Amino acid sequence: MKVAVVGGSGYVGGELLRLLLGHPEVTIEQVTSDRHVGAPVGRVHPNLRKATSLAFSPRASLRAADVTFLATPHGGSAPIVPELLASGGVVIDLSADHRLKDPSHYPRYYRQEHPHPELLEEAVYGLPERHRERLRTARLIAVPGCIATAAILALAPVAAAGTGPGRRAVVDAKSGSSASGRDAGPAGQHAERSGAMRAYAPAGHRHAAEIEQETGIGVALSCHAVEAVRGVLATVHLLDGDPPAERELWKIYRAAYAGEPFVRLVHGSDGIHREPEPKILAGTNFCDLGFASDPAHGRTVLLGALDNLGKGAAGAAVQCLNVRAGLPETTGLGFLGLHPV
Amino acid sequence: MKVAVVGGSGYVGGELLRLLLGHPEVTIEQVTSDRHVGAPVGRVHPNLRKATSLAFSPRASLRAADVTFLATPHGGSAPIVPELLASGGVVIDLSADHRLKDPSHYPRYYRQEHPHPELLEEAVYGLPERHRERLRTARLIAVPGCIATAAILALAPVAAAGTGPGRRAVVDAKSGSSASGRDAGPAGQHAERSGAMRAYAPAGHRHAAEIEQETGIGVALSCHAVEAVRGVLATVHLLDGDPPAERELWKIYRAAYAGEPFVRLVHGSDGIHREPEPKILAGTNFCDLGFASDPAHGRTVLLGALDNLGKGAAGAAVQCLNVRAGLPETTGLGFLGLHPV
Amino acid sequence: MKVAVVGGSGYVGGELLRLLLGHPEVTIEQVTSDRHVGAPVGRVHPNLRKATSLAFSPRASLRAADVTFLATPHGGSAPIVPELLASGGVVIDLSADHRLKDPSHYPRYYRQEHPHPELLEEAVYGLPERHRERLRTARLIAVPGCIATAAILALAPVAAAGTGPGRRAVVDAKSGSSASGRDAGPAGQHAERSGAMRAYAPAGHRHAAEIEQETGIGVALSCHAVEAVRGVLATVHLLDGDPPAERELWKIYRAAYAGEPFVRLVHGSDGIHREPEPKILAGTNFCDLGFASDPAHGRTVLLGALDNLGKGAAGAAVQCLNVRAGLPETTGLGFLGLHPV
Amino acid sequence: MKVAVVGGSGYVGGELLRLLLGHPEVTIEQVTSDRHVGAPVGRVHPNLRKATSLAFSPRASLRAADVTFLATPHGGSAPIVPELLASGGVVIDLSADHRLKDPSHYPRYYRQEHPHPELLEEAVYGLPERHRERLRTARLIAVPGCIATAAILALAPVAAAGTGPGRRAVVDAKSGSSASGRDAGPAGQHAERSGAMRAYAPAGHRHAAEIEQETGIGVALSCHAVEAVRGVLATVHLLDGDPPAERELWKIYRAAYAGEPFVRLVHGSDGIHREPEPKILAGTNFCDLGFASDPAHGRTVLLGALDNLGKGAAGAAVQCLNVRAGLPETTGLGFLGLHPV
Repeated sequence: MKVAVVGGSGYVGGELLRLLLGHPEVTIEQVTSDRHVGAPVGRVHPNLRKATSLAFSPRASLRAADVTFLATPHGGSAPIVPELLASGGVVIDLSADHRLKDPSHYPRYYRQEHPHPELLEEAVYGLPERHRERLRTARLIAVPGCIATAAILALAPVAAAGTGPGRRAVVDAKSGSSASGRDAGPAGQHAERSGAMRAYAPAGHRHAAEIEQETGIGVALSCHAVEAVRGVLATVHLLDGDPPAERELWKIYRAAYAGEPFVRLVHGSDGIHREPEPKILAGTNFCDLGFASDPAHGRTVLLGALDNLGKGAAGAAVQCLNVRAGLPETTGLGFLGLHPV
Repeated sequence: MKVAVVGGSGYVGGELLRLLLGHPEVTIEQVTSDRHVGAPVGRVHPNLRKATSLAFSPRASLRAADVTFLATPHGGSAPIVPELLASGGVVIDLSADHRLKDPSHYPRYYRQEHPHPELLEEAVYGLPERHRERLRTARLIAVPGCIATAAILALAPVAAAGTGPGRRAVVDAKSGSSASGRDAGPAGQHAERSGAMRAYAPAGHRHAAEIEQETGIGVALSCHAVEAVRGVLATVHLLDGDPPAERELWKIYRAAYAGEPFVRLVHGSDGIHREPEPKILAGTNFCDLGFASDPAHGRTVLLGALDNLGKGAAGAAVQCLNVRAGLPETTGLGFLGLHPV
Repeated sequence: MKVAVVGGSGYVGGELLRLLLGHPEVTIEQVTSDRHVGAPVGRVHPNLRKATSLAFSPRASLRAADVTFLATPHGGSAPIVPELLASGGVVIDLSADHRLKDPSHYPRYYRQEHPHPELLEEAVYGLPERHRERLRTARLIAVPGCIATAAILALAPVAAAGTGPGRRAVVDAKSGSSASGRDAGPAGQHAERSGAMRAYAPAGHRHAAEIEQETGIGVALSCHAVEAVRGVLATVHLLDGDPPAERELWKIYRAAYAGEPFVRLVHGSDGIHREPEPKILAGTNFCDLGFASDPAHGRTVLLGALDNLGKGAAGAAVQCLNVRAGLPETTGLGFLGLHPV
Repeated sequence: MKVAVVGGSGYVGGELLRLLLGHPEVTIEQVTSDRHVGAPVGRVHPNLRKATSLAFSPRASLRAADVTFLATPHGGSAPIVPELLASGGVVIDLSADHRLKDPSHYPRYYRQEHPHPELLEEAVYGLPERHRERLRTARLIAVPGCIATAAILALAPVAAAGTGPGRRAVVDAKSGSSASGRDAGPAGQHAERSGAMRAYAPAGHRHAAEIEQETGIGVALSCHAVEAVRGVLATVHLLDGDPPAERELWKIYRAAYAGEPFVRLVHGSDGIHREPEPKILAGTNFCDLGFASDPAHGRTVLLGALDNLGKGAAGAAVQCLNVRAGLPETTGLGFLGLHPV
């Protein structure tokens, strides 16, 4: 399979290149970056030194490929997708540009009208655990947001199992510094970011719209920057008059994710790692899920942990590629993660 | 004023000694630690090297003092308080043993009956911002838990201003590693704790009882360990059909904390530090508060940040001492905090 | 190939299991840990959850295997090696017990006589870059110390190229917290270890003997604990009246490591990653080398960076296995490393 | 005393303002920052919120003061010093512009000719431990570099005590991220800087010239960035045919620093804190010194630890102010430091 990567110099682009270089069915034909035209990939992504002789080309030189990955900033994908689709290839968009079905969400959350709203219905939300069948034939795949993936995988099955009025969820997300991208500005400087516990979006974060779209539950989201380089933990507080017992939660999750290669339930009775922990997921495509029942407060706590650059971005994109290409879903995604790290 | 510190070898004890050594009206007569009998204080607390010639004495040798601080583990204070009170001195208890008024909470949250429940009513909860008058004459002062202080100071005024049925709060707390104490075991080892985002108590944490007692609001609490040495951030999601506008929140807080020397409102429109950030509070007695209104989700987000060893423990104890002794409340608590750190 | 791992519950053991599980020519027959008998491997090494159904067995139950890895503490390997060798298998010892040729070094550096000094001459020092031929037929392989590997790979070729009296080296090493192992005690607690710059062995560290043995240069070693979980950086200050120019250093290294799959030269003219950086090597078997010429001070600075659990321990062990078994040396060692991390 | 601070928006400027605000004999008349004209100091330095009503003024508006502190970038102080001296005040320069006596060093290390070399002889190097008498009457004080201070205080007394040819020192320095200043660029982003062990200046660092000037010993310096926000550790490897015994080193240091309020010897036989550790010095003006004798390698290891913004910059500046003004040297510098932190 011949693939191209647009916008390959950021952190998501780098992780995607790493995974694609190790993918046995993929040949990377081209990687673009207008800021680094001509530079070898290994100069921008030091872990890829000597692993490839690829160099960055200008976006204007982009050629048609079987699959084109867009690791572009939000707003950077939508304008170029129609032309890419016209060439007959598949587009896997890692930006936010095709995640939301309702066109009115774009001006609200991303401050601009969507230039091609007619594509939103066709675009398939790139969560194989929920949309596998549609992904098999999709032309345009929208890779979910990292916090959204963690929250949706934790919340959706439990939300689907429940009933009754007044159900709502508070999602309190924590994320590491790589989620801010390579150019995180003054707030991303080590002296400021080290040891931070910072509510950078106490209300109004855009990923809420994705979670609501996928779960049908009203979601009040708050996002925090904490110290770690990689990792997202979504703590989902599901408020419901009649929370299921933990035994029920086990059953719900097992039924929902039976056979899923990248979703693991973590719910130990003791030890350090009895709850999902993003740090051991760096570089992997896992999403680990945990839970606790809190009947005294009419609440169920659901936990979703993942690597924001892995299952939260590049790993998910490769998983979608595998589904789309009819390959075993774990192809190129076998890294187990490091401990300690 | 002659004071004694019982259990002075832990992190809370060390911070308390640091503050008391710098307090112009205090003489430390004695500091006990059965594990370190005879050791100079500076050997256990390296920042106090050469700052004092005090050495640890055994608890059995404890003598009466004007004020005795108990920096003992939970369960370690209650048995010795009656005798200390009988000697005529004031007791400031930094353990959890006298925080809760309802004796039935102790077996539930601390797994044992309270040995002297008759003292619970008399004990004054050591939050000067709420109980200043009673503190002026208290014999027994119960210093609040660190997460509880952050959540109560953020939540109480807003809770008091609201009305209506169905009000409840989800408190999602993040704390640094020093909150686990000096002997944090395998989970506290750097290789495990570095970069952690760990829901160590997704439900059932004992500080919930303190917050409910002080605010009258049902509180569903989840506690997370994140990477930092010092600091607690309590994100309070107050769920209420009719959340106040931000202008109202400003008014409520200003009215509640007018003249308070250690409560600061932080609510900038831009910049790195537009929300409360615990890291810049290390070593201080400040509690910084922030807020965001989320009317779309019927929610108000309230943020409380502090140093778990400062306003969350030793700083609060010294502030209580000042109130009790009729001193200016900021005596010995003038450190402004470091930035960056 | 059927292998066994003795002492598989520590950090080195866990990394070794991770690599062996991904190795296409290896079957892990047995892994022992007397502390965790019966526990599934994934409970002790959370990254290996669901990746294996192996459980720990007692060491007393150890059966003969084609290759037995000893991930035992120093002093724990020597007593059991003769019996393992007698069974006809190959032994790869990750402890320090067979690294030094001179038996008198053991009482000096490890505080006990070596129980089987007759094996020291036969044992092959497990650096394929220097002893590849002997490794192909070795019965007993001694995997080098992590700091030693970084320093030797940086220093040995330059030392061999020079001449003249008075040559000596100062090696100033920095290492992350995982190098202290899983039970690092009070000094390893996060609150103490975070942000540390700690000269834990300003003089007398045992790895000096390995470096001297392999390079023939007198080495004064100082070891520091700095904040990171994985990684070792050895800064080698080679003092020599007539330091080679950087052009010469390039030549020396290129000649020494031509064709080596795991040694990379890093010497950029600008950018963040112009010198070797251990953090991007976590999980890999690379040793990155750098250098600077300082003729004004008669000094050459040589830099060696690696993952203490990778090329500094488990990765090196697998590389030795590959050499010994006649497999391509990179088998099972293809992970490129993460950036950022 | 009326003081002004030029360039008060950086990290050094912020720490200086914090110390000056707490100094009982100082009134800050003016603080300049051309980037933040009109902004309240607390908006730029969040720890100073509500602690002062000062706002930044443009440098062009600078008025004469009793003492003017220059917290300007290298090259920014020299052009304005003559005019400031002409006004009759004292100038305390925290930049590198007046540290070196030999004018030829400026083009070599700082890439430009010094505009007023006639002032270099008059300028007093701001280490009270070495130049106290001259500081009492100085018009122009040059605050030393942070690495230089740590290395000089460790090395100078031992260098002075020794004799013989061939003596030289290798200084291997480690420093935290705040030493790169507020605008540390891409290399300072958290995702890159976290967990770093980076030889950012393996040879040729400018602080070597200061150390050589003050100690008379040839110094080969290598500088490393490691993870911490504050702190510098200088590991000084003094190479000498006849290294003193540790007993001698104690004597040398005790004689050199008897009565010094900010120099502490740290040399324990056990425990976590038996060597100098910069992390516990954050916010203080201490320089902790340690040592180890390594006669087997003809080497003495000397350790100097300090806070790069404290004794390495702003703290030293205030100490110099106290000396110059005839105040007790510890005035305003009583903070003991935090543990843990």
